[in-house]
Amino acid sequence: MKKGIAASKGYAIGKVFLKEDKEIKITDKKVENVQEEQARFKKALDASESQLKKIKEKAQREVGADKAAVFDSHIMLLGDPEFAGTVENEIENNSINAEKALSDVVKTYAATFAAMEDEYLRERGADIKDVGHRILANLTGNISSLDDVDKDTVIVANDLTPSDTAQLDKNKVIAFLTNIGGRTSHSAIMSRTLEIPAVVGMKDITSCVKNGDTIIVDGIEGTAIVNPDESTIVEYEKKKEKYEEEKEQLKKLINVETVTKDGKRVLVAGNIGKPQDVDQVVANGGDAIGLFRTEFLYMDRDDMPSEEEQFESYKTVLQKMEGKPVVIRTLDIGGDKKLSYLPLPEEMNPFLGYRAIRLCLDRPDIFKVQLRALLRASIYGNLKIMFPMISSLEEFLQAKDVINECKTELKKEGKEYSDDIETGIMVEIPAAAVNSEELAKHVDFFSIGTNDLIQYTLAADRMNEKVSYLYNPLHPAVLGLIKLTIASAHKAGKWCGMCGEMAGDEKAIPILVEYGLDEFSMSASSMLKAKQLIMQK
Amino acid sequence: MKKGIAASKGYAIGKVFLKEDKEIKITDKKVENVQEEQARFKKALDASESQLKKIKEKAQREVGADKAAVFDSHIMLLGDPEFAGTVENEIENNSINAEKALSDVVKTYAATFAAMEDEYLRERGADIKDVGHRILANLTGNISSLDDVDKDTVIVANDLTPSDTAQLDKNKVIAFLTNIGGRTSHSAIMSRTLEIPAVVGMKDITSCVKNGDTIIVDGIEGTAIVNPDESTIVEYEKKKEKYEEEKEQLKKLINVETVTKDGKRVLVAGNIGKPQDVDQVVANGGDAIGLFRTEFLYMDRDDMPSEEEQFESYKTVLQKMEGKPVVIRTLDIGGDKKLSYLPLPEEMNPFLGYRAIRLCLDRPDIFKVQLRALLRASIYGNLKIMFPMISSLEEFLQAKDVINECKTELKKEGKEYSDDIETGIMVEIPAAAVNSEELAKHVDFFSIGTNDLIQYTLAADRMNEKVSYLYNPLHPAVLGLIKLTIASAHKAGKWCGMCGEMAGDEKAIPILVEYGLDEFSMSASSMLKAKQLIMQK
Repeated sequence: MKKGIAASKGYAIGKVFLKEDKEIKITDKKVENVQEEQARFKKALDASESQLKKIKEKAQREVGADKAAVFDSHIMLLGDPEFAGTVENEIENNSINAEKALSDVVKTYAATFAAMEDEYLRERGADIKDVGHRILANLTGNISSLDDVDKDTVIVANDLTPSDTAQLDKNKVIAFLTNIGGRTSHSAIMSRTLEIPAVVGMKDITSCVKNGDTIIVDGIEGTAIVNPDESTIVEYEKKKEKYEEEKEQLKKLINVETVTKDGKRVLVAGNIGKPQDVDQVVANGGDAIGLFRTEFLYMDRDDMPSEEEQFESYKTVLQKMEGKPVVIRTLDIGGDKKLSYLPLPEEMNPFLGYRAIRLCLDRPDIFKVQLRALLRASIYGNLKIMFPMISSLEEFLQAKDVINECKTELKKEGKEYSDDIETGIMVEIPAAAVNSEELAKHVDFFSIGTNDLIQYTLAADRMNEKVSYLYNPLHPAVLGLIKLTIASAHKAGKWCGMCGEMAGDEKAIPILVEYGLDEFSMSASSMLKAKQLIMQK
Repeated sequence: MKKGIAASKGYAIGKVFLKEDKEIKITDKKVENVQEEQARFKKALDASESQLKKIKEKAQREVGADKAAVFDSHIMLLGDPEFAGTVENEIENNSINAEKALSDVVKTYAATFAAMEDEYLRERGADIKDVGHRILANLTGNISSLDDVDKDTVIVANDLTPSDTAQLDKNKVIAFLTNIGGRTSHSAIMSRTLEIPAVVGMKDITSCVKNGDTIIVDGIEGTAIVNPDESTIVEYEKKKEKYEEEKEQLKKLINVETVTKDGKRVLVAGNIGKPQDVDQVVANGGDAIGLFRTEFLYMDRDDMPSEEEQFESYKTVLQKMEGKPVVIRTLDIGGDKKLSYLPLPEEMNPFLGYRAIRLCLDRPDIFKVQLRALLRASIYGNLKIMFPMISSLEEFLQAKDVINECKTELKKEGKEYSDDIETGIMVEIPAAAVNSEELAKHVDFFSIGTNDLIQYTLAADRMNEKVSYLYNPLHPAVLGLIKLTIASAHKAGKWCGMCGEMAGDEKAIPILVEYGLDEFSMSASSMLKAKQLIMQK
């Protein structure tokens, strides 16, 4: 049995298809006919482009436009005259073969990006290598495909690139395993989108299997069993059946109202990162959007999103939710989340630094664009505005002042906005929880952000593997602060939600119901299970 | 009026002595007689050595052996045959003058150190430059001295090196001002040791004054006034008089027991970093050592301190305190405090990382050496052992288990230790404060570490100037946690102290008396003022 990181739930029993990362050997050759060599390169470029366009279309159909967008940058690179021109010059100036010229240019490009400080730009280096590899494969006739696999295939690979995962045929590929990657790596995210079990970060799984091996994938425990004996297969077939049965059972809850044993109506809401994520929340019977992280609007681009762009996104989400509550969190950038076009000072402890509301209050030029877009979108649904990283009442009151300024502006411009927008705060800094009784008098709602609250309360960075063992949602101090926050909200007649991972944690849910939590917000895939647990309590 | 960072309290009115950093010009000359040039170099080397030995002796007498130790490494470098040999070879091989040869060698050495990752070794680069400059000054006859200044001199310099400050004559130099440096820079620390007012980090003060200018130094506000008018001088003379009068008044409190208006006896204790710091605590009438930071034992060296070395230090402190309580904190390394000989992983948020008790529990090989030394020293006084960064009861219980292990070992070895050593924890992580009622049942005492507690509670790194405005000891959440911690201790019949800077904060003291804090621990220089404030409440 091999262990890794559980990336996507479920069980699969199938046959191994080992995707080998063929290192294409480049021979360094002098060529006589430079034009002919340039034509060969051009042909490979065209072939790559048409393949990528197909992959992109398939990805758009199957996993959505946002996840397919990565291929745009690949296609753009293929069409970039500077890139192609550099390779052609290289062939001509040195009378060398296309393979060698291409590989040299890609190396230079990749090294340039790899040396960049900005994480986003560094990642572009990986894109260039991916595209370069495809052109090379076309030049050498080494093009490999995950298209022609048999039914019940489990793909085993070092890693899967975006173009690999986009090609996966869900009718045939029932799971995958990779050597590298973590819970938030590209391949892990894709496995959850495709809803096929996957285990990543298995270190050396590619060297433990061969093509055609029987393999069991346990996407819950994060394990794989190579060539299991008959009794193990039977055991896992039972587990798989039970899991799928339960999944069916849960589906029956989609349209059931969530009411606790005590008769209290509770909202089960979804956390989303992009407008299209609403669909999955609705499909799972979500009562609300409990957290719309707006960072996506600002990321993977070269400049600030305009008021108009933001307005369209917020409006889309509000309309899709048809009057159900939508809590939109204002920009939480800074700390570990950086924007290439907004240079921030290097910080020794970014988690304790200049981020979120601290940055927004300091930069009204950025903050007001978002607030104006939110206000204008408010007439299309039930908007609630939430501020992140609030540590004191002053910050909340200051943020509300900026909203009022925006309202005055909009009124002057004759632009409409709703008059009953609730404004609330994330309770994610210990000070906010400790001081919640005072804060509750002023806000319309709380939403407890447990991921950060636990980190700060225990002074333990959960991304740091040397101390992540301390990160414990059920630590008595954490539970104490949560209980206090909920009680403070209720005392002031306000509601209290939770949008950290803890809201979907099976061990935590019964406790949170007991504390009187009004809204549980989580990823769409956890909602039905949470509903079931809440109703059992 | 010029502003800077207040480094040492008090007022001074005197005449400017501008210490210019003479950039000695090096002429690049071919020499015929190589032996003669080597002899010139040797002579400058010897002169430097005898100057440095004198400076070291003076420093030992006036500021103590630990602060004088920096000159040992300077003297060592002068005697290092490799260093001298390299310069001599350089003279011989290139037939160049000693100035040029020396300057080339120093540059190479300094660059090598400057490129080192380790901060401690990087600083050695500055030592080499300091020594190199002295030899060069001796070669060129440019030796400058702060010895021959007039009475009532205010030294104004870009920065003061260790050898500069060691030369200062307290009978003549009444204050100093520097362009660079912060509250913990070498020169700032020295100004407090010498008890003369100083302002550092004034940026361009050297270009705003000339020799003989009259200047007022305000070491409380961190300002300086160049060529003030008569009325300003009169104003500051009054301030100075009042300040010194108050200082005299405070001195009367040295032997007075600290009792609040309500009749409660309170301990005023000192925070120390090294055994010799005890003297100042005693001189200011300290009732106890409330925090002995043991990191000094581990820093500025190449290997772990032995059990014997540690034992001697702890014993010294306990004996000097003659039976009064001494709270010794176990090693709080990691985070921003690093040891050259203990490589730790790079962390994204070191303040939320692998440090203090987390590291010690993970490394019993390090932890047990310290605990054994502490136990053995316990028979020489009233020792209390305190663990830093405790976030949960488990950690405290684990740490106590290690103590018991050490006791068993010592018993077997026939080594003595006291049987009534109190063990307590720093309350500096929000979880410990929130959960203090439970923790109080198990510990013998709490000591609230406000510096960290405030940082974590407000999620704001106070070293980060973009968010340091959030760092507020009087934030209601911070006060709430402090009040809770004290109440929890008392409920369980335990005592509660405080060893963060807040314990000496004039605004905070009346509140802390009100909350019932039992022990206030601070730097020796703040103790008498605190005593006065506590007795007024």
